Amino acid sequence: MLSSFVKGINSDYASIVSINIFIALLCACIVIGHLLEENRWMNESITALVIGLCTGVVILLVTQGKSSHILVFSEDLFFIYLLPPIIFNAGFQVKKKQFFRNFTTIMLFGALGTMISFVIISFGAMAFFKKLNIGAIDVSDYLAIGAIFAATDSVCTLQVLNQDETPLLYSVVFGEGVVNDATSVVLFNAIQNFDLAHFDVVTVLQFIGNFIYLFLASTFLGIAAGLLSAYIIKNLYFGRHSTDREVSLMMLMAYLSYMLAELLDLSGILTVFFCGIVMSHYTWHNVTESSRVTTKHTFATLSFISEIFLFLYVGMDALDIEKWKLASNTPSKPIALSAIILGLVMVARAAFILPLSFIANLRKKNAHEKITFKKQVLIWWAGLMRGAVSIALAYNKFTSSGHTQLSINAIMITSTIIVVLFSTVVFGLLTKPLVCCLLPPTKHDPTGSMISDISTTSFTDPLLTSEIEIGSTLRPSNLQMLFTQPTRSVHRYWRKFDDRFMRPMFGGRGFTPFVPGSPTERSLPEPGTIPE
Amino acid sequence: MLSSFVKGINSDYASIVSINIFIALLCACIVIGHLLEENRWMNESITALVIGLCTGVVILLVTQGKSSHILVFSEDLFFIYLLPPIIFNAGFQVKKKQFFRNFTTIMLFGALGTMISFVIISFGAMAFFKKLNIGAIDVSDYLAIGAIFAATDSVCTLQVLNQDETPLLYSVVFGEGVVNDATSVVLFNAIQNFDLAHFDVVTVLQFIGNFIYLFLASTFLGIAAGLLSAYIIKNLYFGRHSTDREVSLMMLMAYLSYMLAELLDLSGILTVFFCGIVMSHYTWHNVTESSRVTTKHTFATLSFISEIFLFLYVGMDALDIEKWKLASNTPSKPIALSAIILGLVMVARAAFILPLSFIANLRKKNAHEKITFKKQVLIWWAGLMRGAVSIALAYNKFTSSGHTQLSINAIMITSTIIVVLFSTVVFGLLTKPLVCCLLPPTKHDPTGSMISDISTTSFTDPLLTSEIEIGSTLRPSNLQMLFTQPTRSVHRYWRKFDDRFMRPMFGGRGFTPFVPGSPTERSLPEPGTIPE
Repeated sequence: MLSSFVKGINSDYASIVSINIFIALLCACIVIGHLLEENRWMNESITALVIGLCTGVVILLVTQGKSSHILVFSEDLFFIYLLPPIIFNAGFQVKKKQFFRNFTTIMLFGALGTMISFVIISFGAMAFFKKLNIGAIDVSDYLAIGAIFAATDSVCTLQVLNQDETPLLYSVVFGEGVVNDATSVVLFNAIQNFDLAHFDVVTVLQFIGNFIYLFLASTFLGIAAGLLSAYIIKNLYFGRHSTDREVSLMMLMAYLSYMLAELLDLSGILTVFFCGIVMSHYTWHNVTESSRVTTKHTFATLSFISEIFLFLYVGMDALDIEKWKLASNTPSKPIALSAIILGLVMVARAAFILPLSFIANLRKKNAHEKITFKKQVLIWWAGLMRGAVSIALAYNKFTSSGHTQLSINAIMITSTIIVVLFSTVVFGLLTKPLVCCLLPPTKHDPTGSMISDISTTSFTDPLLTSEIEIGSTLRPSNLQMLFTQPTRSVHRYWRKFDDRFMRPMFGGRGFTPFVPGSPTERSLPEPGTIPE
Repeated sequence: MLSSFVKGINSDYASIVSINIFIALLCACIVIGHLLEENRWMNESITALVIGLCTGVVILLVTQGKSSHILVFSEDLFFIYLLPPIIFNAGFQVKKKQFFRNFTTIMLFGALGTMISFVIISFGAMAFFKKLNIGAIDVSDYLAIGAIFAATDSVCTLQVLNQDETPLLYSVVFGEGVVNDATSVVLFNAIQNFDLAHFDVVTVLQFIGNFIYLFLASTFLGIAAGLLSAYIIKNLYFGRHSTDREVSLMMLMAYLSYMLAELLDLSGILTVFFCGIVMSHYTWHNVTESSRVTTKHTFATLSFISEIFLFLYVGMDALDIEKWKLASNTPSKPIALSAIILGLVMVARAAFILPLSFIANLRKKNAHEKITFKKQVLIWWAGLMRGAVSIALAYNKFTSSGHTQLSINAIMITSTIIVVLFSTVVFGLLTKPLVCCLLPPTKHDPTGSMISDISTTSFTDPLLTSEIEIGSTLRPSNLQMLFTQPTRSVHRYWRKFDDRFMRPMFGGRGFTPFVPGSPTERSLPEPGTIPE
């Protein structure tokens, strides 16, 4: 059964050469990215993309333009190996309180917003593409284009935004990115299996029901996997801790949750994200101190390598000459298409950020918890980048196993690549200056500046109160709080439930049994709280 | 160029199922291995092997014996993904002083001993196999059989021997294992390209010259890669340490050294082993404390997962039904062959361990530094296991891309599997009791018992003296020492050279520049000194 998986990896000379080039380039990206760290325009994603492009050019020159297959983008490499560590680490390092505090906003943007974006891009493409006369495109293709370009790329943005400087922005943009990835992949798969001939209310309801099922089932699977790992490590390993076994088990179970979700046709992205959250809340506190340091940095490192690999890969793939030859009969068309798509993406994003922010602000009584217009602009901007998810979906739709046969397909692929490259490089380069411009850095003034970032004050608050109130009874004002501040009150009830039932069973901060030789070190903060 | 590497990984349903099964089994192995830890007979390798066998049986039953390809053993999966982390970690965690102290013995056993073993097994096979009438086998096949079964499997043994309880045995068995792996792979490749028609003194000399070149070039490449990583991290990262980047760079450069060696047709095993040694001596001291903890445990964890994966894989592969059907026309022959090979392996190993130990003992003046007969027996026993290297080489020789066509090839493959399973399970199970019997545990008596293990006293010695003597001039007695104790004196000169030239350039213990915010923590011991 593994045969097809294993047989493909053949160590012929060419693949050894390419593995060598690839690893050397990864090292170069890390070193150059480090040297450029002070630069306000650059980040590691763009560095990797540029290095990938340069390498592609060099290889094209060396092979004298004959190598039409420098690289064939494999969506499986992307979805099976590169995406899981990135998303898992995101869940593992995310500031949980901040994330759940903004949960409604995140779901509004990530699920409803992506749907709106999908509809606008699909209909916009229908309206504009017909004028270009690019060939036979049917309705399912337009819907696929909508789904492909509704997928934002949060990886690049996250390298610019700082979790400690702008926690609200970070958690909203990042949370939206995860939910958005899941939504667009689910949308894309739903369209592929969609019977357009029988388009009525029932199918729409089925679609929505299916989406909710996927969301809940994926989340449940991730939480179950996380809790299982916590339970195993807490109960079986008591008294005889072994760092290697603990770290192995955490890595393997996280990956297992992702693959299990893929097996059950759920969203692996959501599953592994929630698995990461649960593992950082329970499992991480049950292991030895050295396991904690190791997992924290190992997951971050694997995610870091995957991200660089991804951008390097996209950069090199952009120069696959076969597609360009097919598309070059009509050189102006991919550029026109890309321009239209970029315009649609910008309009579609604005079309849901502004009204949904208004709705999200309605729920917030406190004036400085609202999403200001400046922040809305930043959230809008931060989600304009299109990345590897778009490319993976486009390849899935418009190619068969990496090869483009029809001219129209080649045009669609090249357009996608242009959109991804342009948005990542141009928008990406402008993000850091834009953040600095709209939200001047407040780091060096730790007292007064915190007010300028609305959520910093509310961030430190629950941590302190919940720590103090462990085991204490509900205050008289709680019923009043439930009315005025529902999220906080839900959080309070959750803490009580967590302390009374979950932690005694699954471990967690303060509930780790004492192990001789592995002192339960309290001084080490949670994964999300140290900026690295 | 990466296309062939990437395209093969296809996420069809069957491979997702098998990845799920495999990861779940890995988790099961870790948990069961942990539960069986107290058991004196079992270890994780045997657990994985048995679980692999059981799974194979279950899959055979579920598919009603029709699935002839549950698994096809891929030597590339083995050599490209599983072996490098195991060997690198071995180099990274090895006690360097102990290893270099026994360097001559290790080289005698690993290089010369493997050659002797190869010759005896080849000629023995020639003598005995002809009587079995198993088909057309030519001289190159016999030589290949010699090389295949000269490769010992050190992984299983290392799980039984303890680096702190029996440092001499551990370093000799382990060092021999690494050199032996390299020697047998080099031998095997040399035979494949060997022109048997022109067998004369010149070809033999060429062969020896080639071997020495391979050994030196591989070692040099590994050292160069390690030093380069140390240099980069020491100089570029000064003042702005980032754990993720440091860990990424160490992982990638170690892997790059392996792949580069494979690209240049050198021995990647030797390269990555020496890269690990250099990295633990220089690079590891240049990084932040959290990077140190992370790398130490990450490398151990990756190695641990690879080992379990390997044994699980070998266990499942043993039931590939196609080979058994081909070989089952003559069911007695594989068993007869395996018995002959096992006998030859035991004789061949005894034939070099005893005389070479005698030679090694000649060099040692000190009575309790000699390898006693009991230890010789243990070294002999510890190298009887045959493992994944043998299987990988046998598949390379007797199959084309995992499929066996001829009956004789099927017989050879099944015989190899029988030898590997039998030696790993039966010999492996008996190793722990044998160690206990021949070398009673001395752990609980830390004062008097150390003398029973000859090298413990000499181990703590150089660490202390060298730390005290940093920067001091040579003592008058050094010339005398060079005469009586050459190894120690070489070590002393090396320390002086290291302190004066290498460490100021490449960093290392005590030469790491002070970095604000990342205190140069001296309390954390070297990778090799903490048993986990």
